[in-house]
Amino acid sequence: MNHKTVLRTLGRILRIEAAFLLLPLAVCLGYGEREEALGFAAVLALTAAAGQVLVMTCRGSERMQARDGFAAVALSWIMMSAFGALPYVVTGALPSYVDAFFETVSGFTTTGATVMTGVEAQSMGVLFWRSLTQWMGGMGVLVLTLALFPKSGEGSVFLMRAESPGPIKTKLVPKIQDTAKILYKIYIGLTIAQIVCLMLAGMNWFDAVTHTFTTISTGGFSVKALSVAAYPSLVIRWIFIIFMFLSGVNFSVLFFVVQRNFRAFFKSEELRWYTIITLAAAGLIFANLVAVGGALLDFDTFTHAMFQVVTIATTTGYATTDFALWPTMSQLILFVLMITGACAGSTAGGVKTIRVVLLTKSLRREVRRILHPRVVQPIKIDGERVEESTLAGTTVFFYAYILFFVVGALVVSWDNVSFVEACSASMTCIGNVGPGLGQLGPMGSFSILSPLSKVVLSANMLLGRLEILPLLLLLFPSMWKK
Amino acid sequence: MNHKTVLRTLGRILRIEAAFLLLPLAVCLGYGEREEALGFAAVLALTAAAGQVLVMTCRGSERMQARDGFAAVALSWIMMSAFGALPYVVTGALPSYVDAFFETVSGFTTTGATVMTGVEAQSMGVLFWRSLTQWMGGMGVLVLTLALFPKSGEGSVFLMRAESPGPIKTKLVPKIQDTAKILYKIYIGLTIAQIVCLMLAGMNWFDAVTHTFTTISTGGFSVKALSVAAYPSLVIRWIFIIFMFLSGVNFSVLFFVVQRNFRAFFKSEELRWYTIITLAAAGLIFANLVAVGGALLDFDTFTHAMFQVVTIATTTGYATTDFALWPTMSQLILFVLMITGACAGSTAGGVKTIRVVLLTKSLRREVRRILHPRVVQPIKIDGERVEESTLAGTTVFFYAYILFFVVGALVVSWDNVSFVEACSASMTCIGNVGPGLGQLGPMGSFSILSPLSKVVLSANMLLGRLEILPLLLLLFPSMWKK
Repeated sequence: MNHKTVLRTLGRILRIEAAFLLLPLAVCLGYGEREEALGFAAVLALTAAAGQVLVMTCRGSERMQARDGFAAVALSWIMMSAFGALPYVVTGALPSYVDAFFETVSGFTTTGATVMTGVEAQSMGVLFWRSLTQWMGGMGVLVLTLALFPKSGEGSVFLMRAESPGPIKTKLVPKIQDTAKILYKIYIGLTIAQIVCLMLAGMNWFDAVTHTFTTISTGGFSVKALSVAAYPSLVIRWIFIIFMFLSGVNFSVLFFVVQRNFRAFFKSEELRWYTIITLAAAGLIFANLVAVGGALLDFDTFTHAMFQVVTIATTTGYATTDFALWPTMSQLILFVLMITGACAGSTAGGVKTIRVVLLTKSLRREVRRILHPRVVQPIKIDGERVEESTLAGTTVFFYAYILFFVVGALVVSWDNVSFVEACSASMTCIGNVGPGLGQLGPMGSFSILSPLSKVVLSANMLLGRLEILPLLLLLFPSMWKK
Repeated sequence: MNHKTVLRTLGRILRIEAAFLLLPLAVCLGYGEREEALGFAAVLALTAAAGQVLVMTCRGSERMQARDGFAAVALSWIMMSAFGALPYVVTGALPSYVDAFFETVSGFTTTGATVMTGVEAQSMGVLFWRSLTQWMGGMGVLVLTLALFPKSGEGSVFLMRAESPGPIKTKLVPKIQDTAKILYKIYIGLTIAQIVCLMLAGMNWFDAVTHTFTTISTGGFSVKALSVAAYPSLVIRWIFIIFMFLSGVNFSVLFFVVQRNFRAFFKSEELRWYTIITLAAAGLIFANLVAVGGALLDFDTFTHAMFQVVTIATTTGYATTDFALWPTMSQLILFVLMITGACAGSTAGGVKTIRVVLLTKSLRREVRRILHPRVVQPIKIDGERVEESTLAGTTVFFYAYILFFVVGALVVSWDNVSFVEACSASMTCIGNVGPGLGQLGPMGSFSILSPLSKVVLSANMLLGRLEILPLLLLLFPSMWKK
């Protein structure tokens, strides 16, 4: 590992985090929250200073190799969370550092699992920071550095590879920095569009901005204790459904729309399957709620089914109703959607639809190999052949995902919560979804868990967001050699 | 598909099944159960006739290709179960054919999930047949045909490949028929040894024989309503523990012991990990039972922990206590053991330890690839390089396994049993374990489920026993062409 390059990247990330801290500071000042403002100012100064020291002391060659890129991303996310947790502690919002760290990791990884009880009693500044962390994490802070600093040097492609989710990485345009810029333009464009829509539908600016931050990033934190259930308007609920769904689409596919290349847009296999899975799941849950759950056969029930399916499949994790009370099949479908997730290259978590498609095609090929042992059978996506190394990586990723889910569930189960609670806690965290089932459902809180469980679930959230490999890399001793 | 060859194989299997039916018939006669004897005789005649017709009408070339072997195995197992279910119906033991089919599939696949309530009120003949189906399924009936008929013709290696579990198939000796003979010799040897041990420990011959049938095959049916809990003797419990554990060892590794090749025996990586996982799981459960479950810190508690771990890991599924009442972590560990299972090439189900080892090594290699992108890194087991196609097959198998588990759980969840019950029902069936959790736990019964659930769970049991591909193959239309 090239220590200097990695540490300098960490420094840059901390400086950007300090810049973002200006926003909640401004909110505190605007709402006259003096004590909180002081707290944010202190953390801002500390973060900026730490970043500055790292950047100044680590000058030297800019060249980055794959391992450096992966290490820089993994360490940046841990550092960002370590500093980002401080405002909660100094303002007294979450006095325990473990709680604050959990909440911050849940923010940056756009999970949305919370240990905060009594959200509405918190200061505006803290609530704003909490939502903002999700917006920062959604598209990725390292991708942002690439967009902001076009001369990031050779090898910075590895930063993007390590931070952006998905098995197949597409450069939209030849230069990686331009790709990063386009991604952020789409991200900001969606953000502005949703804020406008929500305000037109009658939401106040603070609620609209904070909820948009957590929708476009598929995060799911809410400034309301009831989450989206606090807004009974069907118009507002469908605005959420549409923007959550869009945020779950691969941004390179959204780019086709910007380019008016609708043929390529409709050709996307992943988009097609993502749409089919979403509609099928909503239909099944609607049927199950009416047939078994005793719900009314009306548009309200359909909206609840659709909202919960989209919010869980995109790994956002809002709630319009307490689905922990739904019949078993509906809960199980939501649990499965936590695994599959939405599209790669979006802000969503989970295994991603494209991987499920690749795995299913691989299974089909295994069977065909018995039928036609001598025929070479490449696997294609959108008409293009997928490399065997990508397939191997995908199948191994799936195993690793289940493995860390199991480890997380085992640790949580020692707290003697129920079987369903332990499993859903681990799955919702590694999938970056947010709510679990039972006591950890949408109306509950993760505060009932032990500190050990919180640390392990934080690790699972990071593993899920960074797609496992960057963090695992840190465990190899040979990684740390020069 | 070569229809004649496949149908002739089916015919042979039915004739063998008819021969096995002589045993419960003899038991009926011995215990003076006249009506039941008549029922068994009728089914025997029908099965023998059907087999004879198939063998007589389908003469011709013996040559078999991979697809024929897989199809023959898949269809044989379905046919065997269809005929094997008849004794339950005609004797009135299970009047519903769906129930009888479920019970028979559960038998042949050595699962041990039951829809029978009031086991001890059943006739001796029926109980004997129920246990015998597990012994027949354990090592495989097609492997038996190879052992019995040395001139099974070219390509019969595919029969063995399709019926024996595991990613890497070892021929113990150059000829496949001799390998089959050795496997059955070890199988029969273990069977006799356990019967003798149990009878020396004071068990009567009927209980000893029927329980041995279901131990060596890792099946788990019991002629007692309380399962092994009916025998309080610690000696008997440890006899079960030892023979279950041995039956979970790869039979080619047991063959090393027969050959006195102890070096090869101790070199086996799979055996090592199987032992480590078993002991670690038992240790964790013991700690959890004492610390959280309030159990006594004594040898009895340790025996319970060890017994349940071995019975679930080997996918046998007996019970000495109702583990559905254990604390969450202990239940979750048992659930995870249902997935991992014991060794390939044994009579156990589940994903198999060797696959977990291969998957973990593959994950390790994915990480190393980032560290050393240009180094070729083969994966080895017992010092020998594993082919990439085997690795690809293993990872895809893992996905398929989880996929069918999810499908099964979704179907069962419509019955509105609990989340844990739906998941454990599907997992215990595809893993060929037997008991689930909650109402489907060791003291419960699957009779509460709908006929649809029973059929889908039967499919999952077959998918688990035949390791998925043979059955999937039947769904491809091109399979059925000449």
